[in-house]
Parts: sequence; structure tokens; C-alpha cells
Amino acid sequence: MDSFTLMHHAVSKNIEVDCITFDYGQRHAKEIDCAQQACKALNVSNLKIKIPNVDAIFANSALTDHQVEVPHGSYKAESMKSTIVPNRNMLFISYAISYAVSRNIDTVWYGAHAGDHFIYPDCRPEFLSNMNAAAQTCHTYPIIVEAPFLHLTKGEIVKIGLDLDIDYSKTWTCYEGQDLACGSCGSCNERQEAFSVNNSIDPIAYKN
Amino acid sequence: MDSFTLMHHAVSKNIEVDCITFDYGQRHAKEIDCAQQACKALNVSNLKIKIPNVDAIFANSALTDHQVEVPHGSYKAESMKSTIVPNRNMLFISYAISYAVSRNIDTVWYGAHAGDHFIYPDCRPEFLSNMNAAAQTCHTYPIIVEAPFLHLTKGEIVKIGLDLDIDYSKTWTCYEGQDLACGSCGSCNERQEAFSVNNSIDPIAYKN
Repeated sequence: MDSFTLMHHAVSKNIEVDCITFDYGQRHAKEIDCAQQACKALNVSNLKIKIPNVDAIFANSALTDHQVEVPHGSYKAESMKSTIVPNRNMLFISYAISYAVSRNIDTVWYGAHAGDHFIYPDCRPEFLSNMNAAAQTCHTYPIIVEAPFLHLTKGEIVKIGLDLDIDYSKTWTCYEGQDLACGSCGSCNERQEAFSVNNSIDPIAYKN
Repeated sequence: MDSFTLMHHAVSKNIEVDCITFDYGQRHAKEIDCAQQACKALNVSNLKIKIPNVDAIFANSALTDHQVEVPHGSYKAESMKSTIVPNRNMLFISYAISYAVSRNIDTVWYGAHAGDHFIYPDCRPEFLSNMNAAAQTCHTYPIIVEAPFLHLTKGEIVKIGLDLDIDYSKTWTCYEGQDLACGSCGSCNERQEAFSVNNSIDPIAYKN
């Protein structure tokens, strides 16, 4: 939802957008399929990058390792830390910067938001600030790394999307990859709450 | 030579070492083969990572694009800037940090040195300092990124290797990938000078 809203937000501001979708060994390909369809619908290019060697570099995360159980309950719970993927966002941002430099693009966006700060170090303001400093010095001209939703809650992000009239039935949020969203993992809980605070109905169907 | 010397330097200090070798679409595989042999000889693990989508992310560099001619002459010449690979080192360091976190390793080394500063932004002290700050904040514990040879010249690096009695015939430096090193590209020139200032003979054969 975050990247999906961010893309629509950018397009609505007439910003020229190239997207990158990462296949990083996540438990299911549903979010990858959603991303491809969403880019196609907006006529936005989408480079799919399949991260190699995920067993060696993204070990012990519930999002990439089927041996680790997906935590259920609140997105803000301590147990959600098992969903941290080691240094995932630095790797993704690095790819995006290389792609940008190869096309004389000067800005990279990613969808980190305030609700991520508690669990994910690589979604926090201090990480972004340091990555941005690194991006200023990694090439012959400075690259800007931004997370436009950094200080917004998931509810505020959904509000932007609802105001843009975007179709959230085209997104996938659940950590599990079953036919229907489970409705009880941390990610489903956070999603449902984001619609609820907007007095809006989540358009996807849930198992529970 | 830089990574090769760095690995031997670390092993000589009884530091436990894991290596990563990147296949990033460089013009030839000779340095990859050398790295594998060098690790095997020291009984050091070596993870080979093949970077995907190099056409999209590492465009227009003489090191990855066969349409771009390898510059010959001094390593310090302006023309060497065509050998910059977009944001290469941030991407490599990001992989190394993910690998490190997956194994509870807390330090990542790379072989940048003073001779690289003029051409390569991602070998300069300010880049390293910023990457190190990002690495402090990318995960639940701080990762340290270091370039132990950052302020050494190539000649000083070779001195360390010669003092350790390491065999530089097992390394490949030339930007071209022919049977013999060309002897005239910027990289060959820098290598030859590094032996020369040590009053030592480079053990590899040259075409010219």
C-alpha cells in the first residue's frame, strides 16, 4: 500500500516515475504481481530485480525464511522484529541509486512511514538521513534519497490514497500468501486499522 | 591486488574472514577466478554474488559496457572517469552488510585506497564516513564499515604484501581480459608503478 500510494502520489504531481520491484525471496509473489499490474495500469516502467543469494544474505527473517513463523497480532508488538530483513532497504536503495545514476535521475524515493519506525531500523529518520548523506557522495553528482511518507501514519497514507481515489483492491499487504489475506498477521492488522481511522472499508476480502 | 592484500593482511592478524566476490558484468572473469583461487588457498569462504540487471543499473561504464572503450594511460588521468561503475561500492557494501547481519558479524572491510580517490567518489573518505554512519543505523546493532588501506598508496599496499611474502602472480589487475595483461591501461600502469616504487619486479607477464 505504501509504495502503491507513493507512486500514485508522484504521478498525480506530474513527476516522471520509474519503478523498481524487488523479488527478494519474500514468502509469496503476490506483492510483485500487484506492483507489475499497478505500474502497467499507470503506464509507468517497472524494473523487476531478483536479488541473488537470499539464503546467504537475508537469513532468519520471517519474511524470507519459511522456517520462521510469521508473527500474528499487533504490528507494534515486539514479536514483529522477526520480520526484519537484514539491511534490506540499504540494498534496495543502493540498486535504485545505481539505476538512477545510469539514467541521470537525481532522486530516489522509498515508502518508509512512521508506523515502521518502531520495528524497522532501516525505515527510521536517522537511517534515511545517513543514507542520504552517503548518496550525496557516492557518485560525481549528489543523489537525493527521500521517503515522502516518513512522518505519516499508515492511516494518513491511506487518506492520501482515498483522496486520489486509488483502488486499494489492487494491493496485497498480508505477510502470508494464501488466496485471501489472513486478517490476523501484523501487516493485516495495521492495514485494517488504517482504513478504520479513515471511516473507510478495506476493499479486499479477508479469510477471517 | 587491493582485496587480495587486504585478505592476507586480515588473515595474518588472525582475523576470521569471510569473502564475497561480485560478478557485476565486468569485461572478463579473470579477477573472479583469481579471487576464488586465493580464498581456496587460504581456506577462507568465498560467496560469489552475480549482480542481476547490470545492463539497467551499471550503464555506460568502460568496466561493464563493451561499447565503451577502456582508457589507456595514467590511472590519474581525467579519461579514467569512464571506468566509474554507478554506485558500485554502495551496492557491494550493502550486500556485505546483509551477509554480515545474517551471521552476527559486526565489521565489513573493503579495499579502497588513496590512489582511488581522484577518480572514484565511492572510494573517498567522505563516502566511507557516510556509509559507516548509515551502517550504524541500518539494523538493530551497529555495523562498522572500514577501508583499512584508505589512506595508503598502491605502492604502500604492495609493500604490505611483499612484507607478508604473498604471491602477486595470483592476481589480475588489467582492465582488459586478454591472455596477458595489456601493460598500458590505467590499471596496469598503476600496478607497475606500485612495484617500481618498492624496487620490486611484478611477477606477472605483460603483452607489451
